[in-house]
Amino acid sequence: MEFSSKLLENAVNEIAMLPGIGKRTALRLVLHLLKQPSEQTLHLTEALLRMRNEIIYCKSCHNISDVEICEICNNETRDKRIICVVEDVRDVMAIENTNIFKGVYHVLGGKISPIDGIGPSQLNIASLIDKVKNELVDELIFALSSTMEGDTTNFYIYKQIKELNVKISTIARGISVGDELEYADEVTLGRSLMHRIPFESSIKSM
Amino acid sequence: MEFSSKLLENAVNEIAMLPGIGKRTALRLVLHLLKQPSEQTLHLTEALLRMRNEIIYCKSCHNISDVEICEICNNETRDKRIICVVEDVRDVMAIENTNIFKGVYHVLGGKISPIDGIGPSQLNIASLIDKVKNELVDELIFALSSTMEGDTTNFYIYKQIKELNVKISTIARGISVGDELEYADEVTLGRSLMHRIPFESSIKSM
Repeated sequence: MEFSSKLLENAVNEIAMLPGIGKRTALRLVLHLLKQPSEQTLHLTEALLRMRNEIIYCKSCHNISDVEICEICNNETRDKRIICVVEDVRDVMAIENTNIFKGVYHVLGGKISPIDGIGPSQLNIASLIDKVKNELVDELIFALSSTMEGDTTNFYIYKQIKELNVKISTIARGISVGDELEYADEVTLGRSLMHRIPFESSIKSM
Repeated sequence: MEFSSKLLENAVNEIAMLPGIGKRTALRLVLHLLKQPSEQTLHLTEALLRMRNEIIYCKSCHNISDVEICEICNNETRDKRIICVVEDVRDVMAIENTNIFKGVYHVLGGKISPIDGIGPSQLNIASLIDKVKNELVDELIFALSSTMEGDTTNFYIYKQIKELNVKISTIARGISVGDELEYADEVTLGRSLMHRIPFESSIKSM
């Protein structure tokens, strides 16, 4: 792409560094901003800068927060003895949306991925182990995505706490509610069969 | 979407105001920025702010430029008597990429679109009419997209200069080079037939 302006080129290149945004899309976004009042660009950049510089991670669960201890950790009605281990804030939001879970979270901030240069020390794993060792924890629920990296991370944590007196579980994998069996992949369908549950308990959850 | 942080929510909302970017994508982009060094956010916001506040439009053709008269208008080898009328800088870039056009441009900055509240006065039309009236212009080439808005804009300009001694043309519409006839839409194929050209001149352009 040949640009008629360095300012334009820089803006496009910076936006195109974001994941999933190519140069054409970046150019479209930049031209949109040029057509809008300059206040929009000002508000956008201010929001990004403030977010990047002032954001706080909850000291207990490491979720993104505006205060030192997040709302969920600070909520007296949540059961601190059940900890759901997730990758990032999006997973917390997804689980909170279900209104099913009344425990607390521990946000790892990623998964162990040697290929991306992410080892256990870059994740919030040590503080999780500490919590299990020093606080009253009954159960850890692993809710990472079931990929190679997710499984590796689960196993890494499991190895360090398996001797301790804590229940370790993982969320159920199976056919989505409402899905047709014929379209399910065989791994999911296989797990669904292997981890079948008593019919009575399936009625209870309806 | 329920956010655990106002800072996060503001950043997501501002990004989601950009066209074609929903809240989920915005959240993904923001979380990406949080994982990168804060310099990346700083560079991104600086590039956007500088672009928005310092960008200059060429005084002659209204293309985005870093100087008062853009490179193309300032180029002695370009034929100022042939003006290609386009919508925005992307069209200039696309035509420049062909290396075929040796005239200059006039960037309207949009198309007449009553539904979006865009009338002729918001576009760079008056300066185009002035140019045709007061400067040595042999030909105007309309290269707007062939939509209702593009056709309206072409016709609006045409009405004001049709009495003047200037050739008015429009870029050819037809089947793309390399495309199969059977997949072409009927309007394009119809125009292609209507505006057929002598075979000899098609050989010359190969």
